[in-house]
Amino acid sequence: MSGAPFQHVAIIGLGLIGSSIARAVREYIPDMRTSGFDASEETRAKAKALKLCDHIGSNPADGLDQADLVILCVPVGAMEQVLADIAPHLATDAVISDVGSCKSSVIAAMRAKVPGHIFIPAHPVAGTEKSGPDAGFSSLFQGRWCIVTPDANTDSAAVERLSRFWQVLGADVETMDAAHHDMVLAVTSHLPHLIAYTIVGTASDLEDVTQSEVIKYSAGGFRDFTRIAASDPIMWRDVFLSNKEAVLEMLQRFSEDLSALQRAIRWEKGDELEELFTRTRAIRREIIEEGQDDAAPDFGRSHE
Amino acid sequence: MSGAPFQHVAIIGLGLIGSSIARAVREYIPDMRTSGFDASEETRAKAKALKLCDHIGSNPADGLDQADLVILCVPVGAMEQVLADIAPHLATDAVISDVGSCKSSVIAAMRAKVPGHIFIPAHPVAGTEKSGPDAGFSSLFQGRWCIVTPDANTDSAAVERLSRFWQVLGADVETMDAAHHDMVLAVTSHLPHLIAYTIVGTASDLEDVTQSEVIKYSAGGFRDFTRIAASDPIMWRDVFLSNKEAVLEMLQRFSEDLSALQRAIRWEKGDELEELFTRTRAIRREIIEEGQDDAAPDFGRSHE
Repeated sequence: MSGAPFQHVAIIGLGLIGSSIARAVREYIPDMRTSGFDASEETRAKAKALKLCDHIGSNPADGLDQADLVILCVPVGAMEQVLADIAPHLATDAVISDVGSCKSSVIAAMRAKVPGHIFIPAHPVAGTEKSGPDAGFSSLFQGRWCIVTPDANTDSAAVERLSRFWQVLGADVETMDAAHHDMVLAVTSHLPHLIAYTIVGTASDLEDVTQSEVIKYSAGGFRDFTRIAASDPIMWRDVFLSNKEAVLEMLQRFSEDLSALQRAIRWEKGDELEELFTRTRAIRREIIEEGQDDAAPDFGRSHE
Repeated sequence: MSGAPFQHVAIIGLGLIGSSIARAVREYIPDMRTSGFDASEETRAKAKALKLCDHIGSNPADGLDQADLVILCVPVGAMEQVLADIAPHLATDAVISDVGSCKSSVIAAMRAKVPGHIFIPAHPVAGTEKSGPDAGFSSLFQGRWCIVTPDANTDSAAVERLSRFWQVLGADVETMDAAHHDMVLAVTSHLPHLIAYTIVGTASDLEDVTQSEVIKYSAGGFRDFTRIAASDPIMWRDVFLSNKEAVLEMLQRFSEDLSALQRAIRWEKGDELEELFTRTRAIRREIIEEGQDDAAPDFGRSHE
């Protein structure tokens, strides 16, 4: 495909995101070559059965040097080790990128392990609660944002090529400072996951209400939280540890606001509650207007 | 329809739930007569345009005494006043019920205002984030639970008739003690709404992250919370005030669990995080197995 930003992408880690990239490349850049690497034999077997990539293997010595774009799709806590493992096998002029949900720690790992390479951290803000190579799909990035966080020294032509790659996969691309990215994602993604994990844990640990009752009556609101609390445990453990400072900061803000609301309930300040509940409704409307969620009631869940 | 548990239902309040009952009765019990009452002229006009009921009005003197089943579908904070207004116009043998999300306060209002009538509190655990007569649909109660909370003195034949009514509308019926209902719903519905309202408020009040960034990158998880934070403000204000004790109790548990998780992040106890995140995943699976949520990834949101 003439004008394609890269000729050969190597995807390291064939989970939900990695396998979605492989599928999207197949669909939108059919002439691009794809290599997939994964340490798990089970994942490789599934990926082979799905014919996700032209080449699927575990050993980076086995052709990684042919790729002009290498994207790490592993949990952020594994990035440093994976970078160390692949470093000797990278083509000199390959662009190294990733899809991690926090950028500062990934940048530190890239600086330490692949200092001689062009590395451009990136984060497609997309996903589902499912994991593994069979969970991916080619349209995952359509209409979603991909945030790239180069620093002042990053080759701008390479940033442009990587941005074009993501655009072809359907994403809108935004450039941002890595520290700011980590703060933004702490509130739009990490804090929501933390809260969801907590409430699902709380609900399953009560004496007066059984777990079976919690499940039975979950349609009252609880079930909405269980979706993101079903996300990959390892991936999310790593996110919270890697983006610790920003997450703790947002958590502090949230706890203060929750205390204020608790006080409003205790003192029966109905006006304060109503004011907040009216304000939050407007934000939902804007998210739908911006095309970042389904306008259908109930997320478009089927009501047969 | 022979064997129908009631001949004529009066629905007081034609919002999401009231209008869904009207539609479901039309569809599943076509011979049953329906009267709809609403204090809002705008709501009545919409309800008339939608032909929701055989009779639509505002004045209970106007035919309410014809109904053998009266269901209050107004915010729980309005129940007492509405009961006082309709009491003189109720048929002596009519069954009075409601759909409120907390039962103890509604029971107190029923005891005070319609002591001579058979009243059976009920709560269909179903809904969407939309409000108003145009938001309802006839299949809303299909496969959802309806909890009835009679006390020891309630006429059991009447409970049986009300249960049959909800079953014909598609719901599974469970009988429960009112206080226990309020505790169960505090965790499966009220706490999730409170948390969702809080986090959406927190996210819109930051200095370092703009509201437009929060909206743009909401697909990272935040948008899941905005759906229930878009629910009717008056209805939810009333729920928190009416079920204050149980909500504050659950909130306390949640806050403790959140503090523990905060501490695990601060001290980088990855194992604790992973253990919780693995446990919560299993609960999602059970909710889907029980048919209480869509098995499709991402709630079945469309990925065009």
